[in-house]
Amino acid sequence: MNVVKVLVAGDRFILPEILLEALARHVPGAETTIIKGKWPVAPFVQIGEVYEAEGDEGALIRALEGCEIAFVHASPFTEKVIAAAAPTLKLITVGRGGPVNINVAAATAHGVRVSNAPGRNATSTAEHSVAMILAAVRQIVDRHNELVAGAWRGDYYAYENTPPEVRGSTVGIIGYGAIGSRVARILNAMGAHVLAYDPYVAAKDMPDAEKLDDLDELLRRPSILTLHPRLNDETRGMIGADQLALLPEGA
Amino acid sequence: MNVVKVLVAGDRFILPEILLEALARHVPGAETTIIKGKWPVAPFVQIGEVYEAEGDEGALIRALEGCEIAFVHASPFTEKVIAAAAPTLKLITVGRGGPVNINVAAATAHGVRVSNAPGRNATSTAEHSVAMILAAVRQIVDRHNELVAGAWRGDYYAYENTPPEVRGSTVGIIGYGAIGSRVARILNAMGAHVLAYDPYVAAKDMPDAEKLDDLDELLRRPSILTLHPRLNDETRGMIGADQLALLPEGA
Repeated sequence: MNVVKVLVAGDRFILPEILLEALARHVPGAETTIIKGKWPVAPFVQIGEVYEAEGDEGALIRALEGCEIAFVHASPFTEKVIAAAAPTLKLITVGRGGPVNINVAAATAHGVRVSNAPGRNATSTAEHSVAMILAAVRQIVDRHNELVAGAWRGDYYAYENTPPEVRGSTVGIIGYGAIGSRVARILNAMGAHVLAYDPYVAAKDMPDAEKLDDLDELLRRPSILTLHPRLNDETRGMIGADQLALLPEGA
Repeated sequence: MNVVKVLVAGDRFILPEILLEALARHVPGAETTIIKGKWPVAPFVQIGEVYEAEGDEGALIRALEGCEIAFVHASPFTEKVIAAAAPTLKLITVGRGGPVNINVAAATAHGVRVSNAPGRNATSTAEHSVAMILAAVRQIVDRHNELVAGAWRGDYYAYENTPPEVRGSTVGIIGYGAIGSRVARILNAMGAHVLAYDPYVAAKDMPDAEKLDDLDELLRRPSILTLHPRLNDETRGMIGADQLALLPEGA
């Protein structure tokens, strides 16, 4: 039986133990070399030509000695590292949404495949978005702090002090990808009328929203607006003062 | 054409204007007498034999003069008031979940019907419950206060500091009524596994939960527990230290 040699490189966010557990489940009997990086205590930086990386190129090259697979999180797979590891390395699998710490072009040139985990943070981010929407609508932070400070106010029943319900409200979602679609699903279950703007998703693929093709039209209607596009050259600056001015009074 | 004479008695929570608007929509041309009470600025009290009421029995009797319908919120419909109004009064319709400020037995004895609005607050309460669950899971208040105080912490990425996701978690709901069923629907859409205990609802009427017949069994499984039974002699004291001790570690 061939023994596969795998580099397992985690950090304090994605613990090596978690990667090892997954590896044992799917590739029992692999031989492993382990690196435990220091992120998030040591911040992400640019290393060589790659971004959001952490660790040392020399140490990574040594650890990759004889490895066929690298199962990693934030290790700096620069051209230099890949060239040194390529004689044995066949696959870099990075447990991140985007492989920004991998020089994919260099890997491809050296015959090393790269896989990543699109949408890895989507559930968590979607839940956090809904949490922040509800915290804003229900005034959770201010009312909590007031109560902790010892103030008990009975006048929150007064009509002008009661927050609106999400049910029956109109919510605008920009970007119906891995995150936006999850947010839409939750708000739709709450009874909101969900409008979505995303030129890359067809109306038939938006089960939890009404697709609008015109961004300005979407901005004119919601009482709640939530943004989930990927930041890139197309989306940078898409929402500014002019766009926010289109929102209805009180949104 | 007969003109119906209606007493419209609101307060600062349910404004008379809102009741008038609904009345105009459904009974155009009604003749109205209007009372604007002071709740929530004046607290609810017991008046005569009724509870959570606000206002003056004498003023209410005078305002009801010749009225066939009373469209009200917190007015004190005691036996005394009902007896005085009964010669013309046919219906008291109270826009509350429970008609606690109406002596329903006295009304019935005088041939006056009473209607109320079960579940009136259910949507708002359900949304608030979900908001509080998410605020707790995502640590919204503490993290907000920390950020406002000027602290920016990058170490919330550390594995031991990241909160769990609702998706894939087990949630226990006690009471699958107007509120609990709405909470179940929202948490189910978030991907939680929802368990419900409610001896008055059949499994087939719990589309968003798995029905458990044993309260202790329900308490042994969830990471999140949310309580929505009506407070009465059957439910008072149903959850105490012994029950909470059954919850899994970390729930």
